[in-house]
Amino acid sequence: MLPYKSLIKIDRKGRQPIYLQVANRFISLIRDGLIRPGAYLPGSRILAEMLVLHRKTVVAAYDELASQDWVVPVPRKGMMVATNLPQIKPRTFAGAQHAYGQDPPFTLNPVPELPHPRTAGKRQKLVVNDGFPDVRLAPLDEWIRECRSLIQQPSYHRYLTTTTPSGNDHLRAQLVRHLSATRGLNIIPENTMITRGAQMSIYLAAALLISKGDHVIVGSPNYYFADLTFEQLGANLLRVPVDKDGIDVDAVEQLCKKKKIKLLYVISHHHHPTTVTLSAERRMKLLEIIRKYNLAVIEDDYDYDFYYSAAPIVPLASADHGGNVIYVGSFTKSLGLSLRIGFMIAPEKFMQQAAALRRLMDLGGDNLVEEALANMLKDGTIGRHLKKANKVYRERRDIAGDLLQKQLGDYVSFQLPQGGMAIWLQVDPKLKIQRLVEEVAGMGLTLNYSYQYYYGTKPGNAIRFGFAALNQRELGQAVTIIRKGIGRL
Amino acid sequence: MLPYKSLIKIDRKGRQPIYLQVANRFISLIRDGLIRPGAYLPGSRILAEMLVLHRKTVVAAYDELASQDWVVPVPRKGMMVATNLPQIKPRTFAGAQHAYGQDPPFTLNPVPELPHPRTAGKRQKLVVNDGFPDVRLAPLDEWIRECRSLIQQPSYHRYLTTTTPSGNDHLRAQLVRHLSATRGLNIIPENTMITRGAQMSIYLAAALLISKGDHVIVGSPNYYFADLTFEQLGANLLRVPVDKDGIDVDAVEQLCKKKKIKLLYVISHHHHPTTVTLSAERRMKLLEIIRKYNLAVIEDDYDYDFYYSAAPIVPLASADHGGNVIYVGSFTKSLGLSLRIGFMIAPEKFMQQAAALRRLMDLGGDNLVEEALANMLKDGTIGRHLKKANKVYRERRDIAGDLLQKQLGDYVSFQLPQGGMAIWLQVDPKLKIQRLVEEVAGMGLTLNYSYQYYYGTKPGNAIRFGFAALNQRELGQAVTIIRKGIGRL
Repeated sequence: MLPYKSLIKIDRKGRQPIYLQVANRFISLIRDGLIRPGAYLPGSRILAEMLVLHRKTVVAAYDELASQDWVVPVPRKGMMVATNLPQIKPRTFAGAQHAYGQDPPFTLNPVPELPHPRTAGKRQKLVVNDGFPDVRLAPLDEWIRECRSLIQQPSYHRYLTTTTPSGNDHLRAQLVRHLSATRGLNIIPENTMITRGAQMSIYLAAALLISKGDHVIVGSPNYYFADLTFEQLGANLLRVPVDKDGIDVDAVEQLCKKKKIKLLYVISHHHHPTTVTLSAERRMKLLEIIRKYNLAVIEDDYDYDFYYSAAPIVPLASADHGGNVIYVGSFTKSLGLSLRIGFMIAPEKFMQQAAALRRLMDLGGDNLVEEALANMLKDGTIGRHLKKANKVYRERRDIAGDLLQKQLGDYVSFQLPQGGMAIWLQVDPKLKIQRLVEEVAGMGLTLNYSYQYYYGTKPGNAIRFGFAALNQRELGQAVTIIRKGIGRL
Repeated sequence: MLPYKSLIKIDRKGRQPIYLQVANRFISLIRDGLIRPGAYLPGSRILAEMLVLHRKTVVAAYDELASQDWVVPVPRKGMMVATNLPQIKPRTFAGAQHAYGQDPPFTLNPVPELPHPRTAGKRQKLVVNDGFPDVRLAPLDEWIRECRSLIQQPSYHRYLTTTTPSGNDHLRAQLVRHLSATRGLNIIPENTMITRGAQMSIYLAAALLISKGDHVIVGSPNYYFADLTFEQLGANLLRVPVDKDGIDVDAVEQLCKKKKIKLLYVISHHHHPTTVTLSAERRMKLLEIIRKYNLAVIEDDYDYDFYYSAAPIVPLASADHGGNVIYVGSFTKSLGLSLRIGFMIAPEKFMQQAAALRRLMDLGGDNLVEEALANMLKDGTIGRHLKKANKVYRERRDIAGDLLQKQLGDYVSFQLPQGGMAIWLQVDPKLKIQRLVEEVAGMGLTLNYSYQYYYGTKPGNAIRFGFAALNQRELGQAVTIIRKGIGRL
């Protein structure tokens, strides 16, 4: 209930009768939108008690409101604010009258944004996304069960009252094991932080490194939200080509020779958007450059967990980099759950400073959720899920590759990625993708397409074809619809 | 399993026998910490297949490792890396040898930190905290039940695959209703953002407003993490006194006359740390100042939901402020759950820019969790919880007030707060609180105490006595222990 005692101030010595003061106060509360059409006024007995008035005074005030059509008596429910008052248009609440207009009365610092808003459109039943996991495989029941089991423990309260900016200690310990077992990372818990996802890790690391005007090397093209983050922090982006073997490390070295470089951002596995993996040879060379120039690197390895060759290449972070590589990853994509949990790996003192900054942005994560994830890493649930999903996605990659080659081979070319959840389709330049997207939407398919892949670089004509979330039948349907759509262009 | 195929490179034309190459490569992997003491090497058959070797070669390599004591054969499990090698000390993993030393090889941007680390100590069974809810009252079962029910819906997948920086739309709509019903806020969903808690709201708002050198007015004392956030963003803090009626608004106006003020940060209900509430008179005056000087304000109302007088005063944000008041709050404290969900209210275009910035920091929240909270707001679960908790906490405030007055009245003075979860105890300056904290710790009580309350201002001698998490018996025990502790000083 609204604090009517504060809202309805009565001047007992005033010239206006008290019932009218009450009625008029209600009218302005309704006019101002504090009491909304369809809401009920408090019962007359209750209001009389709150305002220390005789009940008859309140009844008189309500009668006055009803006679003016501000309220309507509803049997057994009381006085309802009328919904059809000409004075009360819903837009009024958002319009000039009310406290929050469209524009803030003060000026804001700029935030870089993508030039083209993502083309949303109506989401069809069948969706070729940008490279997301299949939530039908997500260990959802295990997840809820783990949370339930935690709150039934006698010590459950400690998961509810505490949060630390570095994350749950148990999860940090399990993360160390997990990264050691899967990637050969040689770290201790003090090198880790549990974040809200890879994006927060990138932001934190970049905010600790970048000052206005600093040079940051990124790929061309590059993951656009990383670009925007660096620009937001004042960086000057220097772009080097990304080809089939990943980022051009010779070009990186040329830049290091010419300028003081503050940071290199690299996606070593399944680059976003192009899906290429940095070759072993370039890795060795890049490690040399990193050591030689003491080059700080953010290695974004958001997609490492899904690899389809027998021998994935370990990340740069697992090799000899002299402490220069800040390693960033996520469980969000690996698990296909809604939870957003990522991590960051760096030297101990870096992590301490990152924790101080993260505390100001966010205090810390959800301790219960982090504990649940730690238990699922420990008891092997996550490992089993990854193994299972890996197998399914590898099959889907192969199926998608076959279908795309057979049915769309005349219009698209691609390299099957070594891992990850998407195929980067280079589309015949004569074919207008935006028109294709509209065409297939009419046939029940949402085809993910974004101009943003070319943020800051020369636009190309490609589709990031996420195959992981579609089973064999759905992949067949999707490719067939695209084939038909091309025919209609 | 580690990617042995990448890690163990064999030179088939080399001078060393292949089994020795394999063994030596394992030794360096163990030395480098990539394979840890107690870990198992892959079965010989599996490794042979991975490396395309004869199995006998692998067996010979493993025998060599065993004869050098690097590994120990364990019946039915295979080859375990020895745990007692003199060459392998656990610290080696963290020490100079390994990739991540203590210090990053590059320089970092500074992050302001609190001068005194929080005195942690061993947590005793009985804890007087800083003002946290009682998790024993938290709607935990309802919460898990709601999440379970969501994932059993046919459309569950949409909660798992999407996230937006402004938050779940259903929760935004329910938030509008909730804030209108409880605080008379007159807003539309476009004025809202769902954040990770009040701290993130403060950070986002401040980052959009503050440029290096800008003047920001804060209370003296003030919530220290807000101070640090503004300083992190380059602000110059101007402090005005906080007395029993809240922040000194005349002092605010004096500053506005003299300087261009970028931002005022105010906690209008149950100020942190002093628990005072801004008086109605000062509110009116402050609103005038806000309109007159077009003063941007962050109103941090983290604790509004718990008020113990019949008529809580509505926030500044509910009054006529010309769109200048950015309103910040949280469900984390209200619910006593581990989930960290807060909100921010501001003009529509401000929120759009805030969303662009939040995307770079965090992409967005946990959509499933936000949907669950929306449902719990809609079905009244949250409302019922707040009503129940309010009643319990009001009783506890009164009990705590009585006990403190009767048993500690000679040593402490305080004003019973109108709401919130803590009493601000002014302690006799002759009494050394740090010594008292140590004394009562020996008697099984953790007494929250922090030097940080005086960050940036003249140190005082006070304890923030959180009463909400303790029932009558526990409050009695806590106060008795403090009484005894004082006797022993």
